[in-house]
Amino acid sequence: MAAPDARPSSAGPPPARSLLLPLLLVLLLAAYSLPADSAARPSSNSNPRPAFTPPLLKRHQLRRPSSSSAELVAGPANASTKPFTAHYFPQLLDHFAFTPNASTVFRHKYLLNDTFWRRPGAGAGDDGPGPLFVYTGNEGDIEWFATNTGFMFDIAPTFGALLVFIEHRFYGESKPFGNDSYRSAETLGYLTSTQALADFAVVIRGLKRDLGAEAAPVVVFGGSYGGMLASWFRLKYPHVAIGALASSAPILQFDHITPWSSFYDAVSQDFKSESSNCFGVIRAAWDVLDERGATDKGLLDLSKLFRACKTVKYAYSIRNWLWTAFTYTAMMCKTIDAFPAGADVLEKAFAAASLYYNYTGDQACNKIEDGDDPHGLDGWQWQACTEMIMPMTISNESMFPPSAFSYDDRSDECFQSWGVRPRPHWITTEYGGYKIDKVLKRFGSNIIFSNGMRDPWSRGGVLKNISSSIIALVTEKGAHHLDLRSSTKGDPDWLIEQRRQEVEIIQGWIDQYHQDMAETSS
Amino acid sequence: MAAPDARPSSAGPPPARSLLLPLLLVLLLAAYSLPADSAARPSSNSNPRPAFTPPLLKRHQLRRPSSSSAELVAGPANASTKPFTAHYFPQLLDHFAFTPNASTVFRHKYLLNDTFWRRPGAGAGDDGPGPLFVYTGNEGDIEWFATNTGFMFDIAPTFGALLVFIEHRFYGESKPFGNDSYRSAETLGYLTSTQALADFAVVIRGLKRDLGAEAAPVVVFGGSYGGMLASWFRLKYPHVAIGALASSAPILQFDHITPWSSFYDAVSQDFKSESSNCFGVIRAAWDVLDERGATDKGLLDLSKLFRACKTVKYAYSIRNWLWTAFTYTAMMCKTIDAFPAGADVLEKAFAAASLYYNYTGDQACNKIEDGDDPHGLDGWQWQACTEMIMPMTISNESMFPPSAFSYDDRSDECFQSWGVRPRPHWITTEYGGYKIDKVLKRFGSNIIFSNGMRDPWSRGGVLKNISSSIIALVTEKGAHHLDLRSSTKGDPDWLIEQRRQEVEIIQGWIDQYHQDMAETSS
Repeated sequence: MAAPDARPSSAGPPPARSLLLPLLLVLLLAAYSLPADSAARPSSNSNPRPAFTPPLLKRHQLRRPSSSSAELVAGPANASTKPFTAHYFPQLLDHFAFTPNASTVFRHKYLLNDTFWRRPGAGAGDDGPGPLFVYTGNEGDIEWFATNTGFMFDIAPTFGALLVFIEHRFYGESKPFGNDSYRSAETLGYLTSTQALADFAVVIRGLKRDLGAEAAPVVVFGGSYGGMLASWFRLKYPHVAIGALASSAPILQFDHITPWSSFYDAVSQDFKSESSNCFGVIRAAWDVLDERGATDKGLLDLSKLFRACKTVKYAYSIRNWLWTAFTYTAMMCKTIDAFPAGADVLEKAFAAASLYYNYTGDQACNKIEDGDDPHGLDGWQWQACTEMIMPMTISNESMFPPSAFSYDDRSDECFQSWGVRPRPHWITTEYGGYKIDKVLKRFGSNIIFSNGMRDPWSRGGVLKNISSSIIALVTEKGAHHLDLRSSTKGDPDWLIEQRRQEVEIIQGWIDQYHQDMAETSS
Repeated sequence: MAAPDARPSSAGPPPARSLLLPLLLVLLLAAYSLPADSAARPSSNSNPRPAFTPPLLKRHQLRRPSSSSAELVAGPANASTKPFTAHYFPQLLDHFAFTPNASTVFRHKYLLNDTFWRRPGAGAGDDGPGPLFVYTGNEGDIEWFATNTGFMFDIAPTFGALLVFIEHRFYGESKPFGNDSYRSAETLGYLTSTQALADFAVVIRGLKRDLGAEAAPVVVFGGSYGGMLASWFRLKYPHVAIGALASSAPILQFDHITPWSSFYDAVSQDFKSESSNCFGVIRAAWDVLDERGATDKGLLDLSKLFRACKTVKYAYSIRNWLWTAFTYTAMMCKTIDAFPAGADVLEKAFAAASLYYNYTGDQACNKIEDGDDPHGLDGWQWQACTEMIMPMTISNESMFPPSAFSYDDRSDECFQSWGVRPRPHWITTEYGGYKIDKVLKRFGSNIIFSNGMRDPWSRGGVLKNISSSIIALVTEKGAHHLDLRSSTKGDPDWLIEQRRQEVEIIQGWIDQYHQDMAETSS
């Protein structure tokens, strides 16, 4: 649980602090939320201080990349130009049990855009109806993902594809118990990846039946946690989806598959290669922050320096606020390096973080301690306390304060917060991961794992081809599932080429499918 | 629900009758229990007559095949020569949820035989430890399957294999709620195939860790429902098992994949080709039985004729008793044909059935209405009311009374009996089945589907090769997973050859595994 053992303990509410760091990363690295080594909601009894809340992330804070910085994670562009209709499927609460509870039905939301679809029947070509391109929703409102996955809209006309975005259970409007869904483990217990995958299978099958499109091939798409789900879906439900594009999917960030320090090593490396001065400033900032934040007077000064909308109660809040920004991109190093050498490190840090939080300068103040959760991050905290145990550590050489990870600590914190204990080895039992190249060399097919090396999550992804049809597309400059964003005029060549390859491979899957179907069964 | 619409309704307890037929088949066709179109436990309130109980099947009634009839299903031979030790794994109640209940732990039984195992370390060869041969237990005590799967013992020395037999949850000693496990849907709800597969994965992983045998390849074996589980396990957990031998696994006996009449058509065809007289006698017997069984006097006479230990209360019990025998094998036709033409059809039928139930002649009477469930068939009834909906019909041309199938009827009966409604399309959603040749042509590997055409369950199996490593081994004369039995001196050449091929293919998987592991990760 990334217990900051080497740090002074005065900086913030102890149980929450170790949980917050990765959560912040999650939020902003992903631009929209993504998996992380985040975790427990502190029990309100265990600590007199305010309960931990997820960091503020307003959608307007997510910016489109400029033409020269396409590797930045993009914001919700062209939302208004991506029309879809909302639908609700009567979904089973529990696919894997038949207890009386299990058969409870809830409204499971999905979105459709059939503008480009080659419908079954008259309009369809020799190959029958156009494919279904299905986004396997991750932890948040499905509109958010539909709006931010412009790639699917961009390529739909070429394929005559029906676009389907399926919400992940317990997020957005797909809450099985309505407002009570997050009440306790009794209700949240049904928020698992396996149930979500089964949901997708059931919705897709029902939808194809209702549309008379049984013959249409299905390709699944997803980014970040959604990318993990897309790749797992292809592996577990090959009879439902003929292939998967899994963008920035850290499916190997579990157990001991990927070194625990690799994520933060990647961030540090990125900054160091950008500017050793910048690296040093950030590295120095944490101690200074803790020191000044140790008194009420200090906190008042810090609040002014960081233009907090309300006086900050814990230095730890500022720490989280900075942490998020610094994990996001090394581009802000230019701002830091522009300061005279003797300037205050926190002033430098604030200026750099402002570039991230307030790029346009139109925010009068920063909501450093506000809680706001537009993407349902509470749900992700639950997932990080149950299945999604992605251990991360920070080494002494990092620009972040060193931090360890302990399964026991995570377990205790989760039990205290949610009344649940993680099953830290379940993901690798259910989905594999160890020696994935050997296992999938002769098993499975039709998966693209795309990753950008500017994205520290890439370190937990599949970075090498596994077989002739389980492919790794890796870009040196790519950021977190940038390939899934809408194309823009300023897209660099490597990004255009990456997307071209993705289209070509997907076209190959669909052609192969039609060819196989045309053959008589042997 | 195979409602015998065309039959007189006076013969037995209505809700039970349509359920019993396939259940009987299950029992004896399989020699040990197997999947069937069986179903609901009649509610004791809905009918004043005695509650339905599964048919009697004493183990001693299962005979070894004679040397000239190896296609007969074999009995529990050499039980005493197959030593194993029993172990118990702390198993999770629910792998796919995190409700407070889900984390309940129960004692999950498995058996080991390490007589032939090439252990890790000193004794192991260049390829490391010998493989784990794991039987994925079906619906019954695991000892029963260990005792009756001599093939694994026979080939273990060649492979230096560790033999593992894992019990299926809710059977044998692996009852999550002890004696209360079958109390209601609240407890039984956790009896599902998906949970069972996850159980297997967890046990195998834990066992390998405890034995220091992480490097050992795992091959899964199973017959009948166990064969379905073995093939599904390879498809869902390729990172745990490198291959599967699925013997007589009717994974296509769901939905509309296989014609609903194919099972009984196969039985009828078998009898007709043996003797048209025999076919006619059996076909005629049902009406005669119903007619005579319509009065108390008639039932008394029938009880004498059939040497019932107790006077039979319902003609339907005799019907079930005969039905089972006649589904079992057409070999008894010799007995029927030996009678003079004018003899009573029920006398003929009794003589033929006696060949099956009382081959050695040492039974003084027949327990026609006794309830006895050595193989936990109650559990299978639950499964047949939830996931395992295998529709079967009987056509007018059959030697059995015609019968229809209705999803609605099945659902209502199950609801009445267990308080649960089936999910009739779930199996094909979770595991596929439609166009399996197309789906698995380019996905998955290393599965042997073995089937014998004398076994009517073969009609719901995979009977053609799907790819170079998803193989169908079909024998014309084979019976229900005969290949998994111990070899005997009397085995016919085709059976010897079938087993030889299985060994050769499995050896190929293991060689390939070691070769892949020896290569540096690319």
